[in-house]
Amino acid sequence: MIVKTPEPPYYAVIFTFLRTEVGNNDYSLMSKKMIELASVQEGFLGVESAREEIGITVSYWKDLKSIKDWKENFDHKIAQTKGRSTFYRTFKVRISKVERDYGFDSLKD
Amino acid sequence: MIVKTPEPPYYAVIFTFLRTEVGNNDYSLMSKKMIELASVQEGFLGVESAREEIGITVSYWKDLKSIKDWKENFDHKIAQTKGRSTFYRTFKVRISKVERDYGFDSLKD
Repeated sequence: MIVKTPEPPYYAVIFTFLRTEVGNNDYSLMSKKMIELASVQEGFLGVESAREEIGITVSYWKDLKSIKDWKENFDHKIAQTKGRSTFYRTFKVRISKVERDYGFDSLKD
Repeated sequence: MIVKTPEPPYYAVIFTFLRTEVGNNDYSLMSKKMIELASVQEGFLGVESAREEIGITVSYWKDLKSIKDWKENFDHKIAQTKGRSTFYRTFKVRISKVERDYGFDSLKD
């Protein structure tokens, strides 16, 4: 679903990646667990995710401190290591400040 | 592909959407045309895109002026109108400033 974020400013972590060809089941389990775990972190606002040729996961956060704390989370650190050793061929993480947003909803307009 | 962006700061436009169930061919053609057109705009740095339940398209730009100019582009404006009337059930556009990034490439490390 499209996340209902608060009024800007808030932060977006744009994570884009190419998967390796191994460990699909393990990867699904890990992804699911990480989203559950992120969801209970202080400052987490939501996550949007899609994958075709490349994968894109955008997570939204209240501030930079929340992002830093999540990066240092113990179970998340284990997942990061597993990501580099096994699941990802390449990835990029971009930490960005959302300055403005607007939307459209055909059911409302 | 994952875009090779320059050193931050630069800008990311995070566009997330749910499609309607109509016009798949027209939509593909329009998407392709818009990406071709964006690619030749001043300040365009690249685009990453994936769609499953939701669609996510992140385009990268040198500065806010490039984003504004692209929003005002004549053909893009026609596409925006068509998007609201036909292709999108709902969407959200988030304009964000990338402050920091890092990556991993298994072929290089």
